[in-house]
Amino acid sequence: MLTNKEMRERDLAHIWHPCSQMKDYESLPFIPIKSGKGPYLFDFDGKRYLDAISSWWVNLFGHANPYINERIKAQVDTLEHVIFAGFTHEPAIRLAERLVTLTPDKLQKLFFADNGSSAIEIALKMSFQYYKNGGEVRDIFISLENSYHGETMGALAVGDVALYKEIYNEILIKTVQAKSPALVGSDEALDSMERLLQEYEGRVSAVVIEPLVQCAGGMAMYDASYISDLKALCEVYGVFLIADEIAVGFGRTGTMFACEQADIVPDFLCLSKGITGGYLPLSVVMTSDEVYNAFYCDYSEGKSFLDSHSYTGNALGCIAANATLDIFENERILDANLVKIDILGALLQRFEALPNVLETRQRGMIAAVELKGYRPEERIGLQIYRYALAHGVLLRPLGNVVYFMPPYIVTEEQLTEMTDVAYEAIKSLI
Amino acid sequence: MLTNKEMRERDLAHIWHPCSQMKDYESLPFIPIKSGKGPYLFDFDGKRYLDAISSWWVNLFGHANPYINERIKAQVDTLEHVIFAGFTHEPAIRLAERLVTLTPDKLQKLFFADNGSSAIEIALKMSFQYYKNGGEVRDIFISLENSYHGETMGALAVGDVALYKEIYNEILIKTVQAKSPALVGSDEALDSMERLLQEYEGRVSAVVIEPLVQCAGGMAMYDASYISDLKALCEVYGVFLIADEIAVGFGRTGTMFACEQADIVPDFLCLSKGITGGYLPLSVVMTSDEVYNAFYCDYSEGKSFLDSHSYTGNALGCIAANATLDIFENERILDANLVKIDILGALLQRFEALPNVLETRQRGMIAAVELKGYRPEERIGLQIYRYALAHGVLLRPLGNVVYFMPPYIVTEEQLTEMTDVAYEAIKSLI
Repeated sequence: MLTNKEMRERDLAHIWHPCSQMKDYESLPFIPIKSGKGPYLFDFDGKRYLDAISSWWVNLFGHANPYINERIKAQVDTLEHVIFAGFTHEPAIRLAERLVTLTPDKLQKLFFADNGSSAIEIALKMSFQYYKNGGEVRDIFISLENSYHGETMGALAVGDVALYKEIYNEILIKTVQAKSPALVGSDEALDSMERLLQEYEGRVSAVVIEPLVQCAGGMAMYDASYISDLKALCEVYGVFLIADEIAVGFGRTGTMFACEQADIVPDFLCLSKGITGGYLPLSVVMTSDEVYNAFYCDYSEGKSFLDSHSYTGNALGCIAANATLDIFENERILDANLVKIDILGALLQRFEALPNVLETRQRGMIAAVELKGYRPEERIGLQIYRYALAHGVLLRPLGNVVYFMPPYIVTEEQLTEMTDVAYEAIKSLI
Repeated sequence: MLTNKEMRERDLAHIWHPCSQMKDYESLPFIPIKSGKGPYLFDFDGKRYLDAISSWWVNLFGHANPYINERIKAQVDTLEHVIFAGFTHEPAIRLAERLVTLTPDKLQKLFFADNGSSAIEIALKMSFQYYKNGGEVRDIFISLENSYHGETMGALAVGDVALYKEIYNEILIKTVQAKSPALVGSDEALDSMERLLQEYEGRVSAVVIEPLVQCAGGMAMYDASYISDLKALCEVYGVFLIADEIAVGFGRTGTMFACEQADIVPDFLCLSKGITGGYLPLSVVMTSDEVYNAFYCDYSEGKSFLDSHSYTGNALGCIAANATLDIFENERILDANLVKIDILGALLQRFEALPNVLETRQRGMIAAVELKGYRPEERIGLQIYRYALAHGVLLRPLGNVVYFMPPYIVTEEQLTEMTDVAYEAIKSLI
């Protein structure tokens, strides 16, 4: 029988884990997972963990979901993958048709990639090349302070979380950050954005934002009205708006896509994470016929968009995504989530009374509790992580922000369990 | 019954395909694939295509491989995915242990990502940060002329195929290219490299190469001795060597990894494509304990490598990779390939006699026929692509270079079929 101890030792001998200081694992509980079922993960010693963060915000309908499994099993027997240049297959076509139907009319075209970072890179490259194809060089991208868009160098360059970016400054291209509505409010943020659009007029390809919630930036939330006003500004200054809905898409903020709440249509919509229900890496960039047509010409004109990844349009990723959309439809998930969103909101309230809580906030199925009175060096989030794991709940605070981003199959009882454990963890610090 | 015509129309209404001028598809045969089996793909009209390029160099053991399918089916029922920060699972551990065993002793550590581009970005970031953690800013990467390392902005910046890179020059960081041994021979290439290492001494983090074959650069091949000499140079000047074996790894050049033929150990080894047998996007970066230890310290020192992708260490990708390694072991694939490599070599010979053939070349399971006398505007490769598809073979020439990179399950009969069709296609152009 394999044990946690054995698996942990074997792992740490060779694996360098993501987003980790490996030395932390000398003292941190490091968990080898044997299996998953619904919202639960099980380790090799038989202990159960409630996955309150959907395994980094990707899982929607539980681990080892029987329906998604069935669809993947059928697909491997039919076609696992085929080159996606000059070739296509039904799972990709169905997925494209469904995403086009689910998003605003203007977004008629879809480009596939493998992960969120790659999707951001594609949106940046497409927006830059759109202008270059028309004879203009617009080498500036504007993003928001406190934003996060991924880890590859283009995506990292438009991010603004110092923790991930700062050490690489010398090997990143110059980009520009406007103030974040989540930190300074919409008015000041819009003023800041307009000043930059003026300062760099004629040089900006695109503005890129995470609509409604800057997730990696501590679940910092802002009003939909900022997005509508920003879109209007982008139109005045003639620059593209890229909506990075990698984390907030697929129902996370209550609506299928966060931009719906602002009633705007971005020029580029980047989707990943929940797109496959938490099963497989897949991402898409959606855009308009107008953008598509700026690249559509005789090959000799040199305006083609030649980006590709080997597994672009992977059939297994696409079938997992189709299965995920089936569940959204068949089980009317967005409606069902409304009840859970209310429950989560109610459960959040009692945190407000704790003396070490600065505020609570919520957008749909994302709820956050921000603590106060701790210095970063105290790594208070790590203490809560440790406490929660010991009590059977997987939380992963971002600095002083404890958050809940559960799979949509979560029950009221499970919502209560995860918030109870977080509450006790925070209370224990007082 | 779905038909090619219907699927094609539905696809082109919404999907923007990778590495494509979409207007080409007005006249190019565009193939909707219904299923795959072994080395064959089948379209919706029942036509069969021999996949002579392993669906962009990824497929090793055939489409819908029964053994890999069985392993994936078992895995989805157990655990499809779990966050890989602070958590782990058996398929990842097994894969790490096996890759560490298959590669030189020095490569003890492994970092996961989703695709080849992301692996390159990680190797670049790690090599840069290694020096930065030690107080040095080394902002220059050296790569080879005619190289290709992927599409995200960091990977693109170290590439040198103008077709993919040039249009984005203004949004890419500055990198430096040395002459390619495949184009000018090893001596001149080494001289060029040494001059650059001198010119940028103290500023270079790493040299990155595709060992033995610059695949996207027209299957340009060079001697293993260049790699050994280059490694020695890198040691003299104290810079890292990154081996991009994304395309050439996993037996493509005859040995498990191309670097084996040069008897050197790179500081970073990037693997992807064939790693999952052509099933799923997954990549790894392997490196030494020395590199790992330069990031291993108290968190407060700020030296952690905080890269991550949501699906890092995906359990389904890892199980596909383990199944792929099982097949390598159980069926002694590298030995079996030796026979096929000889057959392929023999089949290549008759191309030499054609007046429009410049040369043929081969490294293991990669064979190429370079044509002469055609201008790029003629897009002669496209004509061969069209001819081959009409004759039931999927070739995808790179400019004037027709190549074969078949799955390893290919038979002598199938090797004969694919080379016969290519021969007739090339002959028809005379």
